[in-house]
Amino acid sequence: MATSGNRSFWGWGNEGAGPDASQIEGIQKTLESRFAISLERKAAPRVEDLSLRAPRVQPPGSLAPLCSEAPGDRAGHHYGKSYRDVVRGFHGEFPSPPDHVARPTSEADVVALLDWCADARIAAIPYGGGSSVVGGVETAPQGDWQGVISLDLGELSRVLEIDRTSRAARIQAGICGPALEDALRPHGLTLRHFPQSFEFSTLGGWIATRGGGHYATLYTHIDDFVESLRVVTPTGPIESRRLPGSGAGPSPDRLFIGSEGILGVITEAWMRLQDRPTFRAGTSVRFVGDDGFFRGAEAIRTLSQAGLYPANCRLLDAAEALTSGAGDGTHAVLVLGFESADHALDAWMERALECCRDAGGEAPEGAGGTRRTETSSGGGDREGAAGAWRKAFLQAPYVRDALVSLGVIAETFETAITWDRFPEFHRQVMGATQDAVTRICGTGSVACRFTHVYPDGPAPYYSVLAPSKPGSELSQWAEIKAAASEALIAAGGTITHHHAVGRDHRPAGYDVQRPEGFARALRAVKRELDPAGVLNPGVLIDP
Amino acid sequence: MATSGNRSFWGWGNEGAGPDASQIEGIQKTLESRFAISLERKAAPRVEDLSLRAPRVQPPGSLAPLCSEAPGDRAGHHYGKSYRDVVRGFHGEFPSPPDHVARPTSEADVVALLDWCADARIAAIPYGGGSSVVGGVETAPQGDWQGVISLDLGELSRVLEIDRTSRAARIQAGICGPALEDALRPHGLTLRHFPQSFEFSTLGGWIATRGGGHYATLYTHIDDFVESLRVVTPTGPIESRRLPGSGAGPSPDRLFIGSEGILGVITEAWMRLQDRPTFRAGTSVRFVGDDGFFRGAEAIRTLSQAGLYPANCRLLDAAEALTSGAGDGTHAVLVLGFESADHALDAWMERALECCRDAGGEAPEGAGGTRRTETSSGGGDREGAAGAWRKAFLQAPYVRDALVSLGVIAETFETAITWDRFPEFHRQVMGATQDAVTRICGTGSVACRFTHVYPDGPAPYYSVLAPSKPGSELSQWAEIKAAASEALIAAGGTITHHHAVGRDHRPAGYDVQRPEGFARALRAVKRELDPAGVLNPGVLIDP
Repeated sequence: MATSGNRSFWGWGNEGAGPDASQIEGIQKTLESRFAISLERKAAPRVEDLSLRAPRVQPPGSLAPLCSEAPGDRAGHHYGKSYRDVVRGFHGEFPSPPDHVARPTSEADVVALLDWCADARIAAIPYGGGSSVVGGVETAPQGDWQGVISLDLGELSRVLEIDRTSRAARIQAGICGPALEDALRPHGLTLRHFPQSFEFSTLGGWIATRGGGHYATLYTHIDDFVESLRVVTPTGPIESRRLPGSGAGPSPDRLFIGSEGILGVITEAWMRLQDRPTFRAGTSVRFVGDDGFFRGAEAIRTLSQAGLYPANCRLLDAAEALTSGAGDGTHAVLVLGFESADHALDAWMERALECCRDAGGEAPEGAGGTRRTETSSGGGDREGAAGAWRKAFLQAPYVRDALVSLGVIAETFETAITWDRFPEFHRQVMGATQDAVTRICGTGSVACRFTHVYPDGPAPYYSVLAPSKPGSELSQWAEIKAAASEALIAAGGTITHHHAVGRDHRPAGYDVQRPEGFARALRAVKRELDPAGVLNPGVLIDP
Repeated sequence: MATSGNRSFWGWGNEGAGPDASQIEGIQKTLESRFAISLERKAAPRVEDLSLRAPRVQPPGSLAPLCSEAPGDRAGHHYGKSYRDVVRGFHGEFPSPPDHVARPTSEADVVALLDWCADARIAAIPYGGGSSVVGGVETAPQGDWQGVISLDLGELSRVLEIDRTSRAARIQAGICGPALEDALRPHGLTLRHFPQSFEFSTLGGWIATRGGGHYATLYTHIDDFVESLRVVTPTGPIESRRLPGSGAGPSPDRLFIGSEGILGVITEAWMRLQDRPTFRAGTSVRFVGDDGFFRGAEAIRTLSQAGLYPANCRLLDAAEALTSGAGDGTHAVLVLGFESADHALDAWMERALECCRDAGGEAPEGAGGTRRTETSSGGGDREGAAGAWRKAFLQAPYVRDALVSLGVIAETFETAITWDRFPEFHRQVMGATQDAVTRICGTGSVACRFTHVYPDGPAPYYSVLAPSKPGSELSQWAEIKAAASEALIAAGGTITHHHAVGRDHRPAGYDVQRPEGFARALRAVKRELDPAGVLNPGVLIDP
């Protein structure tokens, strides 16, 4: 019986990882000084203190070996890892844990588990790495069920086949980021999909949620890397043909990419890979002044429309640059990087820096020359502002655990908007969110960066930090989240660029922006492929 | 009442365009010499000699002004423009013409026409430019209908809105290629979607069929240029939100992109545009020797995996190069081109030529330097082998009309396959097709080029030329087509890379390669959005 190792049942990552006591004290002092308040750190819950509801259903004997009733397992699979999830976990609130955590070791196991669920009226919640920040894996199914299981794909975690010539691999869906890159590295290959959740998210999860990754331009989502899929639906498996491109009807893959576990369980995929980059050029560009962020955005618009396709092209506003250590809070920073396994990048970077300077950006003299490097697992620039930003990026989910222990609200949300509407959109969203933070919490900060950019618009990502009234974290958070969601939907954005919809983004967001006719289509597909409606009820559509 | 102008009711384009009598004589002599046969040219049919079935239904008075019963209109909308269609038209075979050709002038007209069809049990066949080569617009609906109309979107042909900042435009679906580019040119913009059908195909048709266009790499299909869609289904309109990117559930647009008119009528789209290129670098590279085509393919594999993204990267085998005038039949030719509105392309082209030379390609000394040019409507290189190839490319559909009058079978089919399987795939498909041609016609040629390439594989395009037995053209063609389709499906390819599925590619192709579970999903969507099943019955799925 496999278990989750030493993964925290309430917080982000492995127990013992993340900031240590003195680092947390440093965070506490920084925030106390910034917000002119004092914070109190509460102790984390212990699994032995939990009192979980007893399992309401029992698996048939043949499936029992796949199912775990261990309290740490069940509590750890109750939620994903949104701010709301971590707060509830930290407070020991686990009212509706899965009756079992099922870990199939083969596709036949997945089929058998789904059959059991359909027969016994049990909801099945597909679970990859559990890093959903939108209620996508929460074991709180809509509807009337005899029980609920968390269907953890973690045992289906092998790279099955590698095609070096076409640069592709057939990979099981339950593999996590580090294990995947470890398996590809000896072949000189990499998927180069490095979301912030990299350590605790899976290939299947990235595909099911249209995860966003490493590349700031061009290959922004996992979507384009999917060559073919295998999906187990309650009415049979579906496997698309392995092709570099096709025009034969609507893409079967695109129906399942982003389906968030409501139509079937993705069990494996042929994925398009990259050669490991050996040429790199990176630098950062400062945009000083009150309008620095907007001038940086204008530089990025030019860049994104120039056909240069930088791997890294992330604009941090002054507040975001300060938080991540990439700036001193007086200027916006554009973190810019090119990478290649094939050629030097001087021509690319030179033209990119021209675009930046034309928009008033300040780059270091002689910045951005190509460096020939050994291959390594990460991407982009590791030094200076860029390196500082990257380190902060990967630490952020661990830091959030500490913030929760300090009673600080830490929320992020991301969206996308076309360039013509961006300036007004940004003012509306920043204004509404900052107003809500100040009104609800008295003080707090809202920062913005671009995580991805397109020729027709950026994907802005907003980060909120605010001290909460102890005991009211979740109601305060909910008010801020609602104000932000309403503003960005009203101003024309998408409720999510790469965090998915889940349960949390539906009422004020997805249900508003999604055309109703498409919802009807999706419900029709759901009825056809999952007639008992066991898969992730309440996600994306009503059961 | 608008009509089709002077468009031929049986052949490709406008009457009087295409090769003149002496050019057709030249084609005749070339083929007579190549195949050592003599050919006889038959006269084209005249519309006044047609005797069409009388319309079986009449529109309600309110819709009558939109509907045409003119024989030329009805005959001209009976078929698309596949080889089979042109042969049938040339022989005056029009057994099931549309009862009416309906030309809506507004979205309300589309709604009213679909309502009439559902009420009166009339099949509606959406028609853009009528250039389908797969039976996609043929007025031969599966099932039992009181009548059938061709729903010609040609009156919905305006560019409604232009967003210069985001480089996007809101465009009605019925606009043809030249009119679209004319409307965008004053704004310095271009869609850069130049399929071979450019003159007689529409935006809505490109989207409905996942058309392939100008770019040999990266933006190969229209799919990626769609920012949002508006689709009129029989149960209401569906409009997606205008966004540069999103991760909110499965993409609504991707369900309709490639839906070939079975789910709804695309009435307009926001499309992503390009600046008109002013920098160009182009050349052609020869690959000599028996294995020239495979060495050229290897060069293209390297190129496609290098992250250089040439706009043109088309490999012609020796036979294809001979036919198009790009070579003398002794070597394969790679037509290579970069274009940009932003920067000189020397670094890109230099590295691309290194890849070619490493694979044994011969490029002219000093080839490929960047030329600064005035903007113009076309793309790529206009001189030398590349220019000759391009001219032949755009003339080909007109030439096919002449070949039909000479009794020569002219068929093309295209596919895609991953690089690891390409050499064996190509041998199988070429072998099976050439065998069929020789067995069935006694003589004939099969040539191949790559129209598009991906990091994980090429999209090969095969051209067949063979003299037919007079009167047996279509049975001979069908046998060759079946042999080719069977071979490419058996060897792992797709039945179509960018010609779509329609009715013709279903039994031996699409119905085999498409996962059955996806067909069930598509049927469920069809039932939901088009409960009376009036839209294009028999395309993609059975009614």
